[in-house]
Amino acid sequence: MDIHVKKNLPSEADQNLNRARMLIACPDGPGIVAAVSQFLHQHGANIVQSDQYTMDPDGGMFFMRIEFDLPELAEKLHDLENSFSSVAEKFRMEWSMSYVARKKRLAIFVSKEDHCLVELLWQWQAGDLDADIALVVSNHLDMKEYVESFGIPYHHIPVTADTKQEAEKRQLEVIGDDIDVIILARYMQIISPTFITHYRNRIINIHHSFLPAFVGGKPYAQAYNRGVKIIGATAHYVTEELDGGPIIEQDVQRVSHRDDVNELKRIGRTIERVVLARAVKWHIEDRILVHQNKTVVF
Amino acid sequence: MDIHVKKNLPSEADQNLNRARMLIACPDGPGIVAAVSQFLHQHGANIVQSDQYTMDPDGGMFFMRIEFDLPELAEKLHDLENSFSSVAEKFRMEWSMSYVARKKRLAIFVSKEDHCLVELLWQWQAGDLDADIALVVSNHLDMKEYVESFGIPYHHIPVTADTKQEAEKRQLEVIGDDIDVIILARYMQIISPTFITHYRNRIINIHHSFLPAFVGGKPYAQAYNRGVKIIGATAHYVTEELDGGPIIEQDVQRVSHRDDVNELKRIGRTIERVVLARAVKWHIEDRILVHQNKTVVF
Amino acid sequence: MDIHVKKNLPSEADQNLNRARMLIACPDGPGIVAAVSQFLHQHGANIVQSDQYTMDPDGGMFFMRIEFDLPELAEKLHDLENSFSSVAEKFRMEWSMSYVARKKRLAIFVSKEDHCLVELLWQWQAGDLDADIALVVSNHLDMKEYVESFGIPYHHIPVTADTKQEAEKRQLEVIGDDIDVIILARYMQIISPTFITHYRNRIINIHHSFLPAFVGGKPYAQAYNRGVKIIGATAHYVTEELDGGPIIEQDVQRVSHRDDVNELKRIGRTIERVVLARAVKWHIEDRILVHQNKTVVF
Amino acid sequence: MDIHVKKNLPSEADQNLNRARMLIACPDGPGIVAAVSQFLHQHGANIVQSDQYTMDPDGGMFFMRIEFDLPELAEKLHDLENSFSSVAEKFRMEWSMSYVARKKRLAIFVSKEDHCLVELLWQWQAGDLDADIALVVSNHLDMKEYVESFGIPYHHIPVTADTKQEAEKRQLEVIGDDIDVIILARYMQIISPTFITHYRNRIINIHHSFLPAFVGGKPYAQAYNRGVKIIGATAHYVTEELDGGPIIEQDVQRVSHRDDVNELKRIGRTIERVVLARAVKWHIEDRILVHQNKTVVF
Repeated sequence: MDIHVKKNLPSEADQNLNRARMLIACPDGPGIVAAVSQFLHQHGANIVQSDQYTMDPDGGMFFMRIEFDLPELAEKLHDLENSFSSVAEKFRMEWSMSYVARKKRLAIFVSKEDHCLVELLWQWQAGDLDADIALVVSNHLDMKEYVESFGIPYHHIPVTADTKQEAEKRQLEVIGDDIDVIILARYMQIISPTFITHYRNRIINIHHSFLPAFVGGKPYAQAYNRGVKIIGATAHYVTEELDGGPIIEQDVQRVSHRDDVNELKRIGRTIERVVLARAVKWHIEDRILVHQNKTVVF
Repeated sequence: MDIHVKKNLPSEADQNLNRARMLIACPDGPGIVAAVSQFLHQHGANIVQSDQYTMDPDGGMFFMRIEFDLPELAEKLHDLENSFSSVAEKFRMEWSMSYVARKKRLAIFVSKEDHCLVELLWQWQAGDLDADIALVVSNHLDMKEYVESFGIPYHHIPVTADTKQEAEKRQLEVIGDDIDVIILARYMQIISPTFITHYRNRIINIHHSFLPAFVGGKPYAQAYNRGVKIIGATAHYVTEELDGGPIIEQDVQRVSHRDDVNELKRIGRTIERVVLARAVKWHIEDRILVHQNKTVVF
Repeated sequence: MDIHVKKNLPSEADQNLNRARMLIACPDGPGIVAAVSQFLHQHGANIVQSDQYTMDPDGGMFFMRIEFDLPELAEKLHDLENSFSSVAEKFRMEWSMSYVARKKRLAIFVSKEDHCLVELLWQWQAGDLDADIALVVSNHLDMKEYVESFGIPYHHIPVTADTKQEAEKRQLEVIGDDIDVIILARYMQIISPTFITHYRNRIINIHHSFLPAFVGGKPYAQAYNRGVKIIGATAHYVTEELDGGPIIEQDVQRVSHRDDVNELKRIGRTIERVVLARAVKWHIEDRILVHQNKTVVF
Repeated sequence: MDIHVKKNLPSEADQNLNRARMLIACPDGPGIVAAVSQFLHQHGANIVQSDQYTMDPDGGMFFMRIEFDLPELAEKLHDLENSFSSVAEKFRMEWSMSYVARKKRLAIFVSKEDHCLVELLWQWQAGDLDADIALVVSNHLDMKEYVESFGIPYHHIPVTADTKQEAEKRQLEVIGDDIDVIILARYMQIISPTFITHYRNRIINIHHSFLPAFVGGKPYAQAYNRGVKIIGATAHYVTEELDGGPIIEQDVQRVSHRDDVNELKRIGRTIERVVLARAVKWHIEDRILVHQNKTVVF
């Protein structure tokens, strides 16, 4: 169907051909901004956006995101990365450079609840998620036809308590080695530590509560029983601790005593959709740095 | 100072002379609304506001708040209450009737942090809290001069681990037997079960987090360490379970990685002030019914 | 596709078989609530929800919404309506009674922007809009295939300056005489006064600004040029005054100087979707009364 | 009273002794960030925060805010400013450098409504507004005693249609030539173009509506009549166009049909207080750049 065609305008794509982004984390100290901006200027790059944050001017961590344009970037990117190593070493930087024109590849995991998946697909086809949705993995068949109507491969991998290990092995196989980020779009299975190790800070989950309130199962029932006046949703990177990973984004909405558990779920679905889509967008745009168990979002 | 004079207009006070409010809770069943409205109509009362909520039409609880005008209410109120008993018995109601012109009397407990107290005093002198602030109790002297400048008695009752029981006894003495509600305006002491028994569902606390997240001490430090993207405050009735009582109101505000613990506290102070003031206002206006560990707020 | 199947559970439908709703507006006066609740009680109905609002106790308007259960409602509804006439006359009521099991029939008008239509269809198939989407009307072909995949008729009626009158005539024909409410889901055409007359307070439009700011065309460009820090969307009933009809619902989101017009549009699309869906839901659930140019939403 | 003593801790003040901020606006082009950061690094300064925004990478405006530490700043600041001129000229920068330890001096204008003034004074005494409140000017006497209790001079300058010109002359006299910013804290008088010329982009007004909705007088009555579901407040710099100056900050709150004009005013007072205090804080911290009729807020 024609609504499934992505609407990225050519002009935008052309713009991106010469654009790259850098993420930098290192111990703070004098001269970092000067060194990085000097480096980019000398190589002919023009900084179009720059964000910086220092946790504590006295010996804390320094975080930076830079977006720059460089004519004929495709040919020069490799050299640029090599040359930057000396700057990076001097300041003991952890850093990455990403080429905007190379779209990130997403794998979406889903169970039976469709709303988060539908939202991501809608935003993607509307041109609002600048990425490729490479595949969808599910332990159920419910969304197969819908996903495939977008031309996206759908891998049905059932999971039971007994077959969990085997299932994760198959998941890793179908994902292959060319996926940038995995989205758990209400995928109601716990991911094993082994699996997480492969995608450290690259698995985004949406939890249907305002974390750290209501960790674990049935958070809307928990929220109803506690009588909260506001409910929320939380997008976070998955770690070994259940619902304990670095929080990327949260949002909330007011509820009242009139809202029973079903109504909380209904209201919550919209919060979940919006929060997850924002977190995915920010990850795709290289806006997120993880430090210890927290995120810096530029 | 003249800014401390309450600005209640005469017309409003006159209006209140004939106004009362009823709160009703009972098992749901047919004919309740009809019986209550019929009763009021027959006694010459005009319903000016009515709210109703049924937890579950099949055998749940029914809650109602009615505000009505009745000419010459002062003379008739006693009879009205007596007559209503038969209606109440029939439907096994818990109920109360309050006379709007009789202002509720508040006792405010405070420690060193002044912002919640200052807000309540400001809203009170602006005419936005239709109540009498009968006294302030504090374990510190910091706010004495300020409170007394409003003509409000300030009782300094120090509390230590050893003197806690004695201190609570003195608190109950200075409060006397004519206080409707106690406000813990950042009063950093735990109230004993004995004390709570005297004021069941009549002690309002402001907790400086979005409960049930960050129960207990130093919630802003907890929030900072967890890396939440939104912070909040919660007003609740005090029960024997720490920070576990029925929630009256909550509100939140967005924060970012740039906000350190001090900045979270600064942002939080405004949320705390607003949330506590709303909860107090609703209590004063007889808008809150407590059922099990939850509130119905009309 | 199976995701297009509505998920209304049988139990919910059964419940609805005996449920009705009343909307009442009349000059305030003593005895209204008593008369209505007495009437329902005498006819064997049990009130499950009731909301009431008086604009001004001294001679203002009185508004009421009642939801009630009545065994064997289907057989009794006609008689009930007839009997109520005498109550209604006494208090000069404008009133309506609606039978919950009879789903309201919607016509959705759309141009090229798909997000509001997609949201309504998604909420509908998720069981969150308890109505029938009878047809979609559009001046473009873009959404035809998508809409028809849900089994919903799609009427393509082009509109030009010259053919506007003729087009509206055809629209009224395809709508027929059995549509309860028309949703303008980003339908970028002005509706003529003649057309409006047929559906007074039954045409819901979503305007992509926080009205009354930015009436008319290109509101996001207007918002960008004015440099507002918050943008919004407004759902309202359509009247003869452009973007001037009674407001049903509004919501907003924070933006910054970094957001250009395209980003405002992107952020705004989510606000528009949510706000329109809420307004439609409330209309379907008979929650809205219009008085002069304002709404009472229960 | 001791609550009026500012609580700035010595450590914070010491920190500030070596801290300065720069605001820069210029046409975008390659090498700006490199030049500025290189300049600061060569002079021994350490950048502790930096924000940058480019309106449009192709020939738009570039905006930057830098906060830096420089040992023995007091002695070096003058030289630093002189040396920067050559950098500034090269890129045609408009720029300013401010010394954090030198507190900005505020003049607050107020009429009879006290809430915005009270909020600023409370935040100031709580240590949240890092500035000196040099004086208060009012056309009424209402707040005189209260303001003077903080040790702040209060200038009563009545204003009538006939004496307006004369009154503004006196206002300019009492303000003198050492005030950084004027706050109109619900000062219900229109400022003349002549007066504005003296304090271009240095007069902050709080307007009690979500601009550009409800420009002019009685915005809450306007909002009530239009039936909006959300009300707001707007802090902006004052220009010759009434309520038309660059918007600094806005915030909103949900209201309902139950809220009459007085209730809108009551709710609005809290929004006004919070929004004005944020705008003042940001101005004091040199976070705001004005370009044409819009603000960049870092």
